[in-house]
Amino acid sequence: MDEIRELSYALDTFYFLMSGALVMWMAAGFTMLESGLVRAKNTAEILTKNVALYSIACLMYMIIGYNIMYPEAAFNSFFPHISLLLGGDNTVAEVVVGGDDASYYSNLSDFFFQVVFVATAMSIVSGAVAERMKLWAFLLFAVVFTGVIYPLQGYWTWGEGFLDELGFLDFAGSGIVHMAGASAALAGVLLLGPRKGKYGPKGQINPIPGANMPLAALGTLILWLGWFGFNGGSELKISDVESANNVAMVFVNTNMSAAAGLVTALVVARILFGKADLTMALNGALAGLVAITAEPLTPTPGLAAMVGAVGGLIVVLSIVTFDKLRIDDPVGAISVHGVVGIWGLFAVLFSNPDATWMGQLTGIGVIFGFVFFSSFLIWGLIKGIIGIRVSAEEEYDGLDVHECGLEAYPDFTAGKS
Amino acid sequence: MDEIRELSYALDTFYFLMSGALVMWMAAGFTMLESGLVRAKNTAEILTKNVALYSIACLMYMIIGYNIMYPEAAFNSFFPHISLLLGGDNTVAEVVVGGDDASYYSNLSDFFFQVVFVATAMSIVSGAVAERMKLWAFLLFAVVFTGVIYPLQGYWTWGEGFLDELGFLDFAGSGIVHMAGASAALAGVLLLGPRKGKYGPKGQINPIPGANMPLAALGTLILWLGWFGFNGGSELKISDVESANNVAMVFVNTNMSAAAGLVTALVVARILFGKADLTMALNGALAGLVAITAEPLTPTPGLAAMVGAVGGLIVVLSIVTFDKLRIDDPVGAISVHGVVGIWGLFAVLFSNPDATWMGQLTGIGVIFGFVFFSSFLIWGLIKGIIGIRVSAEEEYDGLDVHECGLEAYPDFTAGKS
Amino acid sequence: MDEIRELSYALDTFYFLMSGALVMWMAAGFTMLESGLVRAKNTAEILTKNVALYSIACLMYMIIGYNIMYPEAAFNSFFPHISLLLGGDNTVAEVVVGGDDASYYSNLSDFFFQVVFVATAMSIVSGAVAERMKLWAFLLFAVVFTGVIYPLQGYWTWGEGFLDELGFLDFAGSGIVHMAGASAALAGVLLLGPRKGKYGPKGQINPIPGANMPLAALGTLILWLGWFGFNGGSELKISDVESANNVAMVFVNTNMSAAAGLVTALVVARILFGKADLTMALNGALAGLVAITAEPLTPTPGLAAMVGAVGGLIVVLSIVTFDKLRIDDPVGAISVHGVVGIWGLFAVLFSNPDATWMGQLTGIGVIFGFVFFSSFLIWGLIKGIIGIRVSAEEEYDGLDVHECGLEAYPDFTAGKS
Repeated sequence: MDEIRELSYALDTFYFLMSGALVMWMAAGFTMLESGLVRAKNTAEILTKNVALYSIACLMYMIIGYNIMYPEAAFNSFFPHISLLLGGDNTVAEVVVGGDDASYYSNLSDFFFQVVFVATAMSIVSGAVAERMKLWAFLLFAVVFTGVIYPLQGYWTWGEGFLDELGFLDFAGSGIVHMAGASAALAGVLLLGPRKGKYGPKGQINPIPGANMPLAALGTLILWLGWFGFNGGSELKISDVESANNVAMVFVNTNMSAAAGLVTALVVARILFGKADLTMALNGALAGLVAITAEPLTPTPGLAAMVGAVGGLIVVLSIVTFDKLRIDDPVGAISVHGVVGIWGLFAVLFSNPDATWMGQLTGIGVIFGFVFFSSFLIWGLIKGIIGIRVSAEEEYDGLDVHECGLEAYPDFTAGKS
Repeated sequence: MDEIRELSYALDTFYFLMSGALVMWMAAGFTMLESGLVRAKNTAEILTKNVALYSIACLMYMIIGYNIMYPEAAFNSFFPHISLLLGGDNTVAEVVVGGDDASYYSNLSDFFFQVVFVATAMSIVSGAVAERMKLWAFLLFAVVFTGVIYPLQGYWTWGEGFLDELGFLDFAGSGIVHMAGASAALAGVLLLGPRKGKYGPKGQINPIPGANMPLAALGTLILWLGWFGFNGGSELKISDVESANNVAMVFVNTNMSAAAGLVTALVVARILFGKADLTMALNGALAGLVAITAEPLTPTPGLAAMVGAVGGLIVVLSIVTFDKLRIDDPVGAISVHGVVGIWGLFAVLFSNPDATWMGQLTGIGVIFGFVFFSSFLIWGLIKGIIGIRVSAEEEYDGLDVHECGLEAYPDFTAGKS
Repeated sequence: MDEIRELSYALDTFYFLMSGALVMWMAAGFTMLESGLVRAKNTAEILTKNVALYSIACLMYMIIGYNIMYPEAAFNSFFPHISLLLGGDNTVAEVVVGGDDASYYSNLSDFFFQVVFVATAMSIVSGAVAERMKLWAFLLFAVVFTGVIYPLQGYWTWGEGFLDELGFLDFAGSGIVHMAGASAALAGVLLLGPRKGKYGPKGQINPIPGANMPLAALGTLILWLGWFGFNGGSELKISDVESANNVAMVFVNTNMSAAAGLVTALVVARILFGKADLTMALNGALAGLVAITAEPLTPTPGLAAMVGAVGGLIVVLSIVTFDKLRIDDPVGAISVHGVVGIWGLFAVLFSNPDATWMGQLTGIGVIFGFVFFSSFLIWGLIKGIIGIRVSAEEEYDGLDVHECGLEAYPDFTAGKS
C-alpha cells in the first residue's frame, strides 16, 4: 500500500514538474511573439525585458510572492516568510507520506509550477508597453507586480481567500493570470501614451508592422504548446483514473479552443480587411487559449471549440476598438488577455453548473479593480520618480541602442532608420 | 490491485499526452522549416498556411476524421458520429477500470495523440506547393484531406481495416502519415507547375535559396524532438517493463537514424556538390526520421543508423532527380516524406520477421494510389472552381502582400523585390 | 508486488526518456544561441557545425563512447564493445525484474540520456571557435572528442573510476560536461588565434556584434528549458518520495540559479558598461545554469540563487578578461562553461557535507589537464595534416559561401559584405 502511495506521489510530482517546464517554456513564447511584433530597432530591448522579467518573477515569488499567495502551504508558517530564501536546511522537501492529510506530491513541484505562472502574468505587460517604455522603469514595476500585486489577488481565489468563498471559478487563470496581467498593462499604457506616429492628427491609425513574422508565429506555437502545461497541470493531479481523464479532456479542449480561435480570427479578418491577416490569426489562437483557460474541463470538445471561436471573434473586434480609442497596444495583449479573459470567465457559466453570474462578475470586478488601480498607483509613482517613457529621440532611434547598447539585427538594418 | 490498475492507467495516459504534445510541437517544426526555406516575400503566407492547416486538421478530425479512422473507439458508435463535437455531456471521458477489456488509458488522450498526426500529414503538403499556391485553395484542400482522405486510408491499417489484415506493417506512419502527405503533395505539385524562374528554357535548374537558414535548422531540430513523441508514443503503452523497454528502444533508434541520415546526406552532398550543403544535411536528418518511422522498434541501434544512412543517401539523390524531372518542390518534402517513406516501409523487412514483401508492397501501392488519385481529384476540382495558382504578378510580388496584406520582414527587405 | 516494481520501472524509464528529450533539445539551444551571436556571413556554417556535431556525437558515443564511459553497464561486457552497433539481437533491452540488483529502469533509456550529454559537451566547442575554423577540421575533432576524450574522463567519475573514489563530486556535470567542453574549446582557440579585426594593433578590442539577437535569446531559453532535463534527470530516479522530492528541488534550484545569474549579469553590465547588455544577461543566465549543475540538490533555493548570482558576476568579468588577454571566444563559451564551471564545482562545498576541497581540486585539475592537453594534441595533429583555419579570403567573405555553398540570409544581406 505504501509503495503504491509513493508511486502515486512520484507520478504526480513528475506531472507537475513537466507541466511547470511547459509553462516556463511560455516565457520563450512571449519573448518570440513580442520580438516578432515590434520594429527591428526595439527588438533587443524587448528581448531584455522578457528574459529579465521572467528572472525577476522567479526571484520575487520565491522571496515573498508564494508566501503571500499560499500561506497555508507546508513550508510557510508566517508572513512574510522568507525561510525559503535564506533557510539553511532542506525541510521544504521533507514531506511525509501517509494519513489522509498527507501531501500527494512534492511541495516544491507545486512551487515550481506556480512560479512560472507569475512570469506569464508579467509577460503580458511587456508587449503592451513595448517600443516606448524605459527598461528599468519596467523592471521596477515587475518587482512589485510579481512580488506583491499578483500574489495578493491570486490568494483571494487560489489561496482559498474571499473570492474562492464567493464561488468565483477560474480553473487555470483566465482572470487571475491573464486578465490580471492585462489590467496592469492597461494601467501602464494609459499613463504611457501611444507610440509616436501611431495615431495621426486627423484620426488616422497608422499600422506599425512588426519586423519578424516567423518569430511571431513561433512564439504563438510555443505558447500553444506551453498551454498544455498551463491548463493541463492545473488539474493538480493525474494519478487516478478520474484525474487522468480530466487532464486528457483539458488537453483536448485547450487544443480545440485554440484551433477554433485561429480559424475564426482568420476568417473574420478576411471578411473585415480583405486579407488573411497573419497577426490576427495568431492573436485568434491566443484568444482561444485564454478563453478556455477559465474552464477547460467541463465543456465537450465541441463546446470548447465554440468558446475559442467566440474568443477569436472578440479579439479582432477588440483590437480594432482599442485602436479607435487611440489606446496603443503594439501586440494586442490587452485584447487577447484582458477582453478575452473576461469572455472566458463568463464562458464558465455554459458548462460548469457550479458557476454563478454573481461569482464570476464579482471575481472579474475585484481582480480588475484591484490590479488596475494598484498598478496605476505603482506606474504613477515610478513615473513621478524616474519617469516611464523614453525621450522622443530615443524612441526615434530605437530603444536598442540607447537602453541596451547594441542592435538586434546589425547586419540587416545597417543604414536604415 | 485496483489502485495499481489506476496508476498504470494514469501513467499511460500521461505518456500519451506528453507524446501528443511533442507531436503538436512538430507543427512548429514544419512552420519554421518551411518559412526558412522560402523567399522572404512568401514567408508570411507560408506561416499562415501552416498555423491554419494545423487548426483545420484538429477541427476536421474532431468533427469526422477520428470517427472514420477509429470506428471501434469507445465513443464512436456509428459513422459519421458527431457527438464529440456537439454532445452535451462528458461521457467520452468516463472510462471504466477493470476486466480484461478495460481501457488502459484515457480515450481522449488517444484522440489527442491521433489528432496531431493528421496535422503532420497535412504539413507535408504545404512545403511542396509553397510560393505559388493560393492560400484559400490550399486551406480548402486541407479540409477534405484531414477530414476524409487521411482518415480513410488510416483506417485501413491502424483502424484494423483490410491493410492490417493483409499484414501491412507501419509502426508509426512512414506510409500512413508521411508517404500519404507526400502523395497528396505530389498531386498538387503536378497540377500546379513549378515556380516561375525555377527551370530555364534550356533545361537549367536555378536554385531559389530560402531566406532564413537558422529557421530551417530550428525547424529540423523541432521535428527531431517532436519525433520522439511521434514514434515513442506509437508504442501506445509504457506501464510495464516490456513496453518501457520498447519505448526506450524506439527513442534510441529514432535518434540514431536521424543522426546517421544527417551525416550521410552531408557527406554525399560534399562529394556531389563540393560543399557541405546545410539544406541537404537537414533533409538528411528528416529522411532518417521518416525512414525509421515504419519500424523503430525491432532494429538494433546500429541497424537503425544504417536505415537512416540509406535514407540520407536516397533523399539527396531524390531531390536532384525531381529537379531533373522539373517537378518543383521548394522544400524537398516529396523526397523526404514520400520517397524515403517508401524506403522506410521496405526497411521493415530487415528486422521485423512479421513483415512480408507482399504486405509492404500492397500497403505502399494502396496508400499511394488512393491518396494520390483522390487528392488529384480534389485539387482538380478546386482548380476548376476557384483556381489553385496565384497570378504571375502576385507570384512576382510575393504572396505575402497579396494574400496576407503584410510583409514578413518589413524592416529588412524594404526597397528590395 | 511485481506489478508495482514494473510500474516503478516504467515511470523511471519514462522520466529518463523525457529528461533525455529535454537535453537533446539543448542542441537546438546551442544552435540558435551560436547562430545568433555570429555575423550573418558565418551563420549557415555554424548551423551546419551544430547539427553535424550532434549527429556525430550520437553515432560515436553509440559505437565506442558509452562503452568506455560505463563499462559496467549491462550490455557492455568488454571494451571496445561494439555489439550495440552491429549486434543482431535486442538483448540490450531485455532487463529482468526482481532481486535487489535488478535494474530499475531501461538501460537504453540511460543510454539515451547519456548520449545527449556528449553532444552538449561538444556544442560548447563550436561557439568558441566560430567564424574562422574549417568545418571539416572541426568535425574531425568532434569524432575524437565524443568517441574517446569525453567518455574517458567521464568514466573517471560517473563510471566509478578513480575520481569517484577520490570523492570528486559533480552531480550533473559542471566539470565533466561543461568545463570539459570549455577545456577542449580553449585548446582549439589558442591554436586557432583570434578573428581578423577583433583585436587592433594598439590593443583595441573591437566588438563584432552577432547578427540575430532574437535567436540568441531563444537559444538561451531553450537551454534553460533543456537544463531541467539535464539536472533533473541526473537524479536518475523519481519513483519514490525521496527521489521525487529531490527532482523537484533540482528543478527549483536550477531555475533560481539561472534567474539570479541573469539579473546579476544584467546589473553588473549596467554598472560596468552603462547599458543593459542583452548578451551579458543571456550569458548570466547560462552561467547560473552551469554553476548550479555541480550540485543542484543540496542547496536551498535561496543558496542556489546566490550560487547563480556569483556565476553571473564571474561570467561578465571573465569575458572582459579573456578579451584583455586577446583570447577570442565569439560567444563567451569558455567563460560560461569553463570558468563558471570551476566556480560551480567549488560551490558544492557550501552545501554538500560530503564534498572536500581536495576532491574538488583534484577533479578540476585532472579533468582540465587531461581534456586540455589531449585536445591540444588532437587539434595540433589536425592542424598539421589538413589545417584548422580558413584562409583570410574565406574569413573575409564569410564561411557560408565557401564551406556550405549558400548564404544564411540571402534576401537580407544582398549587396552587403
